[in-house]
Amino acid sequence: MGGIPDSHPRQTSLLARQSLVDAAAEGLLADSAMIAHGRGEAFDYLLGETTSESAMDAIRQAAARLLAAERPVISVNGNTVVLAGKELIRVAAVIGCPIEVNLYYRTPERVSGLLDRLSQQRDAVASEPAPGGWEGDWQEAVGSVVLLGDAADHNLPGLEGPRAKCCREGIGEADVILVPLEDGDRCEALVATGKQVLVVDLNPLSRTAMTATVTIVDEVSRAASELLGEIVSGDCELSEWNNAAALNAALEIISDAAV
Amino acid sequence: MGGIPDSHPRQTSLLARQSLVDAAAEGLLADSAMIAHGRGEAFDYLLGETTSESAMDAIRQAAARLLAAERPVISVNGNTVVLAGKELIRVAAVIGCPIEVNLYYRTPERVSGLLDRLSQQRDAVASEPAPGGWEGDWQEAVGSVVLLGDAADHNLPGLEGPRAKCCREGIGEADVILVPLEDGDRCEALVATGKQVLVVDLNPLSRTAMTATVTIVDEVSRAASELLGEIVSGDCELSEWNNAAALNAALEIISDAAV
Repeated sequence: MGGIPDSHPRQTSLLARQSLVDAAAEGLLADSAMIAHGRGEAFDYLLGETTSESAMDAIRQAAARLLAAERPVISVNGNTVVLAGKELIRVAAVIGCPIEVNLYYRTPERVSGLLDRLSQQRDAVASEPAPGGWEGDWQEAVGSVVLLGDAADHNLPGLEGPRAKCCREGIGEADVILVPLEDGDRCEALVATGKQVLVVDLNPLSRTAMTATVTIVDEVSRAASELLGEIVSGDCELSEWNNAAALNAALEIISDAAV
Repeated sequence: MGGIPDSHPRQTSLLARQSLVDAAAEGLLADSAMIAHGRGEAFDYLLGETTSESAMDAIRQAAARLLAAERPVISVNGNTVVLAGKELIRVAAVIGCPIEVNLYYRTPERVSGLLDRLSQQRDAVASEPAPGGWEGDWQEAVGSVVLLGDAADHNLPGLEGPRAKCCREGIGEADVILVPLEDGDRCEALVATGKQVLVVDLNPLSRTAMTATVTIVDEVSRAASELLGEIVSGDCELSEWNNAAALNAALEIISDAAV
């Protein structure tokens, strides 16, 4: 994407779009992935393309719950890997949790393609500096991040077909799941198992946003960066969480943008 | 798309999406077409997926201006052909104007692919009944709709490269252009030529929406159906038009949806 100058005000947005176009050409994304991204772009535009105060509260809450979890897992789909894969590998390295490729439109080709991409991202992250403030052996921490998804040996109750499939070692036995960009049916099914479900969704009116335990109404790569910072600092505190209030705060921003 | 039952509440939206996925697989759409559609879906969702009163006012005004034009033309891109091609052929047949395939990301393959698709749509429309209330030889009227775009022998001033290209016989000499789903730069360039530019855009904050002579804030296939009805009835009256007021009305709907 040599055509986008560094000074372009929408450079981040245009580069993200180009990454998805390239990934789609490589066969990593479902047909509807680009449409989903476009919907997100529209909501992000109305949200001012910035992480709001209420989104930061949700990010802190998600960080606290991931840190307090016994078996946390990060579940990723194609768009998440393309847009925020490296940042989520850093999060997984700091928490010490696995990442599971879990797709709504599951095909063996896309799962293995995304695992390959994550593996390359993991190598890249391992060779980069540790996040500021983090202490320990970064290469080892990153190299220890387990990538799951190939052997889907578990079914989520309440779902049918390929959409139900997941890994026992990952989502199956997790108590807290960070699952950006999740579908509504699956979010409901995960919540119904009693797990805590932390989502990232730009549409505060989506079923996913309204069903999750903690909804971060933010763009996934911005949210992942902020989440990493909170997890490394460890300042976040577990507390009662009013998710409806967080959604209302996002709706107010959209409403203000539109008048 | 055998998987979507007739009773599904989002059937129209899902069928539109599938038409675009199919057209993309056929190479008829630019890479960013699906993302653009997704953005539209988000705004349509906030607009209640219905044609608002203020959109109907804009549609009536567009109808009046197309009927009063000396050389009207309908300019279409890939998404417009896929989502509303047949309806716009009906509009062109009733008005007696050409349709020009004009693409922001112009390639000879996509132009000729879309002209083929329009030609098939024209055959289909010719074999269907005339719109209720229309009198005359429908087959002849539809068969007379000229499809332009192949020979781009004119350049729009103020634009460079393939984006500037259009047909003299179509956009080049037109006084009124209906151009759904247009890019902001091109909309500005068209307006700068002194032509009346009638657009359909679901984002009332887009540069296209804010630049056009008349902006219909509505989904393109719904807008095209309503436009056909207004043009056939001929009830619409040419008047002064406050486009900013129309955009504000759409923003109010979005704002109300978000609180």
